[in-house]
Amino acid sequence: MVDTLSASEPLEADEAHAPLDLAPTPRTGTIDVDWLGRDLLGQWADRRLAARAKAANPDYQRIANLTMEDHRARVLGQMRLLADDGAVLVAFPASIGGEDDHGGNIAGFEELVLADPSLQIKSGVQYGLFGAAVLHLGTTRHHETLLPPIMRFDVPGAFAMTETGHGSDVASIGTTATYDEATEEFVLHTPFRGAWKDYLGNAANDGLAAVVFAKLVTKGVDHGVHAFYVDIRDPETGAFLPGIGGEDDGFKGGLNGIDNGRLHFDAVRVPRLNLLNRYGDVAADGTYSSPIESPGRRFFTMLGTLVQGRVSLDGASVVASKAALAIAIRYGAERRQFTASSDVEEEVLLDYRRHQKRLFTRLAETYAMSYAHDRLLTEFDGVFSGRTDTPEHREDLETLAAGLKAMSTWAALDTLQESREACGGAGFLAENRITSLRQDLDIYATFEGDNTVMLQLVGKRLLGDFAKQFKGASATQLAQFAAKEFAGRAAAQVGLHQVAQDVRDLGKPATASRALRQTAVQRELLTDRVETMVAEIAGRLRHVPRGDQAKSSKAFNNVQNELIEAAQAWTELQQWKALTEAVERMSGETARVMTWVRDLFALTLLERHLAWYLANGRLSGARAKVVRSTIERLLVKIRPHALDLVDAFGLGDEHLRAAIATGAEGDRQAEAQAYYEAQRAAGTLPTPERSPRRR
Amino acid sequence: MVDTLSASEPLEADEAHAPLDLAPTPRTGTIDVDWLGRDLLGQWADRRLAARAKAANPDYQRIANLTMEDHRARVLGQMRLLADDGAVLVAFPASIGGEDDHGGNIAGFEELVLADPSLQIKSGVQYGLFGAAVLHLGTTRHHETLLPPIMRFDVPGAFAMTETGHGSDVASIGTTATYDEATEEFVLHTPFRGAWKDYLGNAANDGLAAVVFAKLVTKGVDHGVHAFYVDIRDPETGAFLPGIGGEDDGFKGGLNGIDNGRLHFDAVRVPRLNLLNRYGDVAADGTYSSPIESPGRRFFTMLGTLVQGRVSLDGASVVASKAALAIAIRYGAERRQFTASSDVEEEVLLDYRRHQKRLFTRLAETYAMSYAHDRLLTEFDGVFSGRTDTPEHREDLETLAAGLKAMSTWAALDTLQESREACGGAGFLAENRITSLRQDLDIYATFEGDNTVMLQLVGKRLLGDFAKQFKGASATQLAQFAAKEFAGRAAAQVGLHQVAQDVRDLGKPATASRALRQTAVQRELLTDRVETMVAEIAGRLRHVPRGDQAKSSKAFNNVQNELIEAAQAWTELQQWKALTEAVERMSGETARVMTWVRDLFALTLLERHLAWYLANGRLSGARAKVVRSTIERLLVKIRPHALDLVDAFGLGDEHLRAAIATGAEGDRQAEAQAYYEAQRAAGTLPTPERSPRRR
Repeated sequence: MVDTLSASEPLEADEAHAPLDLAPTPRTGTIDVDWLGRDLLGQWADRRLAARAKAANPDYQRIANLTMEDHRARVLGQMRLLADDGAVLVAFPASIGGEDDHGGNIAGFEELVLADPSLQIKSGVQYGLFGAAVLHLGTTRHHETLLPPIMRFDVPGAFAMTETGHGSDVASIGTTATYDEATEEFVLHTPFRGAWKDYLGNAANDGLAAVVFAKLVTKGVDHGVHAFYVDIRDPETGAFLPGIGGEDDGFKGGLNGIDNGRLHFDAVRVPRLNLLNRYGDVAADGTYSSPIESPGRRFFTMLGTLVQGRVSLDGASVVASKAALAIAIRYGAERRQFTASSDVEEEVLLDYRRHQKRLFTRLAETYAMSYAHDRLLTEFDGVFSGRTDTPEHREDLETLAAGLKAMSTWAALDTLQESREACGGAGFLAENRITSLRQDLDIYATFEGDNTVMLQLVGKRLLGDFAKQFKGASATQLAQFAAKEFAGRAAAQVGLHQVAQDVRDLGKPATASRALRQTAVQRELLTDRVETMVAEIAGRLRHVPRGDQAKSSKAFNNVQNELIEAAQAWTELQQWKALTEAVERMSGETARVMTWVRDLFALTLLERHLAWYLANGRLSGARAKVVRSTIERLLVKIRPHALDLVDAFGLGDEHLRAAIATGAEGDRQAEAQAYYEAQRAAGTLPTPERSPRRR
Repeated sequence: MVDTLSASEPLEADEAHAPLDLAPTPRTGTIDVDWLGRDLLGQWADRRLAARAKAANPDYQRIANLTMEDHRARVLGQMRLLADDGAVLVAFPASIGGEDDHGGNIAGFEELVLADPSLQIKSGVQYGLFGAAVLHLGTTRHHETLLPPIMRFDVPGAFAMTETGHGSDVASIGTTATYDEATEEFVLHTPFRGAWKDYLGNAANDGLAAVVFAKLVTKGVDHGVHAFYVDIRDPETGAFLPGIGGEDDGFKGGLNGIDNGRLHFDAVRVPRLNLLNRYGDVAADGTYSSPIESPGRRFFTMLGTLVQGRVSLDGASVVASKAALAIAIRYGAERRQFTASSDVEEEVLLDYRRHQKRLFTRLAETYAMSYAHDRLLTEFDGVFSGRTDTPEHREDLETLAAGLKAMSTWAALDTLQESREACGGAGFLAENRITSLRQDLDIYATFEGDNTVMLQLVGKRLLGDFAKQFKGASATQLAQFAAKEFAGRAAAQVGLHQVAQDVRDLGKPATASRALRQTAVQRELLTDRVETMVAEIAGRLRHVPRGDQAKSSKAFNNVQNELIEAAQAWTELQQWKALTEAVERMSGETARVMTWVRDLFALTLLERHLAWYLANGRLSGARAKVVRSTIERLLVKIRPHALDLVDAFGLGDEHLRAAIATGAEGDRQAEAQAYYEAQRAAGTLPTPERSPRRR
């Protein structure tokens, strides 16, 4: 034993990379890859497959080492191709040639991330933001005249909401649109540098028009943020129209196929009818009217129509994560860390436990993200098709979109980075694709709503729902409830007493491991955490005096970190639920393996938050160790199915476009091995120098 | 109370951003920024300042939006500038015009990351790898003839170690150098595609020569990896010499100013004297000799001379982290999340608790990394100057370099990303610098030794040291010891009984918080974790039968994840120790604030590993909550000193080169505020639309 650990010789870097305690791991082929692949495609499989066919077309694909100018020109050309193809019409009304298919439209756009994220986002700007604002915030008069040229990409446009001085805080923008009764025009004005519109796709070069968000002022009253359709450039010369100016945002950390830029307005006059007037209108005489009485609710209703941006970023993050994992897992299944010159063929990277933990935990998370996105898209389609367009559904949709967008854009960056590193130096080469995807997706974490702000939205909703339960309750009653929560939520209260017992009290690790893999136990542990965290935060806020904005803000700041964590916990629970429901639909070997995947996801969440479970008495120290050991066991179980699990993503070489994911590494290894075998057979392999006797 | 949580109105995105429970936070000016800045510069302050002066020169600076070809050409020009400057000679012997200043040399090179990481790494390839290999692996005959043109950059060279088939596993390379007694030449040969040298800086274009690592074969015996000096290109035409071929690695995720490429050799003959023969030589008749008997020790001695690459990546990561934090914290101290149009001036981003946690925890970590790097550099200088060149010191140096390189390259990526996101969309623009630094530093995590492999090296060393304590002990004795460790290491054993009591048993949170901020308690908690983890792993390995390589490998694989975590814990302890020792040298207000920084670092480590402390009975659940609340309190305490703490990094606008870190945002805010004030004074500010009465 002591010799095994001897430090008398310096340690070989790779000595610790040791074979796995498993029989060799051939592909078992026991998962129904086709079925699983079809299931993953979800409700709008045809739209996804059609978009993937586009992504497989080199004309749509990103090329490395272009200047910003060349990349922009290339993506501009792709936008025209896309418009000619007609698929961009999918979400728009039948009256203008569309198909009113909201979910299918998003599903298709998401897959374009496989071609070039710049194309996905530039088309998102044109159709999902600029066009969608005209569609959802405008009325028939706008639809008929404005949408057709937008759809044909004859009028590229900017979505001019964000300002340099205000990112996610849209309510505070500085741009004003003051109604002039004399001429029946709005006067758009940028009062100071901080109110320049900023980071707008299509603004630096291509945009001929913009939907400009400004505070609508009429008769001396500020009615808050509204949207205006504004021509910004002369279509002939490409020059800014009078009163309009701008700047190029220049080179960015990614997405350089998009011409982001700034816009500002010097008393620019637009006709009254250019107000996108679905939620607020101004009569010729300057009288303001709105179908929504409350300015706050009106504002959020307008912004809510733009939720599709968040939905599609969630979906695109899922697609990019799948691509990264397919590349890293295919490479890991071929790459050997030891020389083929040794007598025994050595293990591939994917047999190392560390490599498994790095990639399989993220594989499980990506499956959960994928099924959770499917639910989000269905919810979105329900609301936007009108089938389930109620305030409650809209609120649920916005909460789910905010939470999933935050978690999956971050997860995609994490997965892309881990996949990059798991491929070593090869992962850094453009020919292996991962770094460029990561660079482009970087901004997904802060655009269409900063992730931190998104999670606060979710957190506030959780607090609101909690408070609703106690509507009319006295502060004392609430305090009592909260106190009880703090002391450890009584599991019996929710009828899961026995389940909780399973988790907390069972003696033997094996039994505990089994318990941790039960759906009901996982559900209880994940749900309990959300509820307890929310109750605890509510408890900490309970002394905040009613109506004192300053004290309320201060109190919120004191729980800001906790609130965000509670929102993350809630979102993780939604992901777990979606994955669990998906697995419950499966059968046979696919169900068996996918249950391990689901278990790995659940246990990864438990491990991530183990300190909470321990500190709050939900898991004992001994049980915590079982979480880890069960994860290790699941990694080993999933190993033989890893290639099948990424094959089910349905991404071909034409989508991955990574030299290391094509079998090239395996071929090289085979060539090396054949060389050494031939040398050995011919007796020409040099003898290794003998070590001197051990001192 | 219920109203505070009401969900009857949709929630405003930024409502949760609330002011801090602190008085306004002007810069206190109480830290001695100059002293602290000087202290951070460390032993080789002059070298650092000289390099920073270079980095401030636009000729050395990175430009955005260059093609790979243009970026390479620019960096090549900078290399010539650098050579003309003469500073590159610092580490080389006086006999060739150098100054034998090893620590100072690295200190200077690290700072070049502020100019362009491509320049830092390309000069690292030329002087720290190619030139250093000639210096450290060659002998006088090589130094006299080869070093001068290398130093002048007349002969750019590649360091041809890594192969496509083998990254960090150098011992397994396939390239051979077979001695031919007849001609007194070595025949360098690449037997198969996997043995192509790969990812080599200077290989695609500029390299005229290379130090090629190959297995030295003479008289039918393979003596393992040795280094050979090989001319690869005709200096006149730039064409490969006969028998030599290669490929361009092409565009990469970053560092595109460096021409990485591949090389292969088809029976290329080099003179016998081209063997860099310090650690192994071949006589004219083919007889092999070496001053180091053991082939394993010889191999690691040769590789050990190249530790400076890891040392300098650790240092460059510290510099890049400082730059990112300076940018994000300066911006965060100006950027307001609410509109200046409200009646009260609203808080800046840095007053939000989430923002503080994101940035200040990383600020504390960066301080720890900086002081830890200083210790590493001193250790390095001691060994390489010969003052402390003993096997023990070399081993310590290699372990510390491996651990710190892994932790700080990862931390830099994390800090750069968090800083990018903390700056929102502005953080994504090239004009704000952070994304390009992150892209360039990405590869630092896997080159000069993959971080995962580095941590396994450290882990093995820890196990080795542990085993040494028990040299000659029986398996039973060891098992008994391990069992005792598992049961919970008795603190009394290390004479810290009282300290441990402080941590575990004290009743009141306030007392516990005080205890957690005691140096001795932190030391005990961090040390205990390392020791217990190592003992536990050793215990799990104790049944591995002596000499059974397969079983040993399998057993190691089963503890691979734990071993890596133990290595991380050890490295974190080294960082904590370095920071603590630095703080102990400080006085007055600087000491007071820096103690908070140290405490924040320690508590961040405790929070990161809280599950372990809880599961192993080191902290109770109640105590765990105190860890969190103490962190929150430290964030508030550090807030007024945040700008001073980044000012002490000594990086000017010319080093940061980020538009948002120049005060521009503050100017914009002031302009906006003045506008609203003037409107208000003139009575021209529109009245907000009144909300309808609450239903």
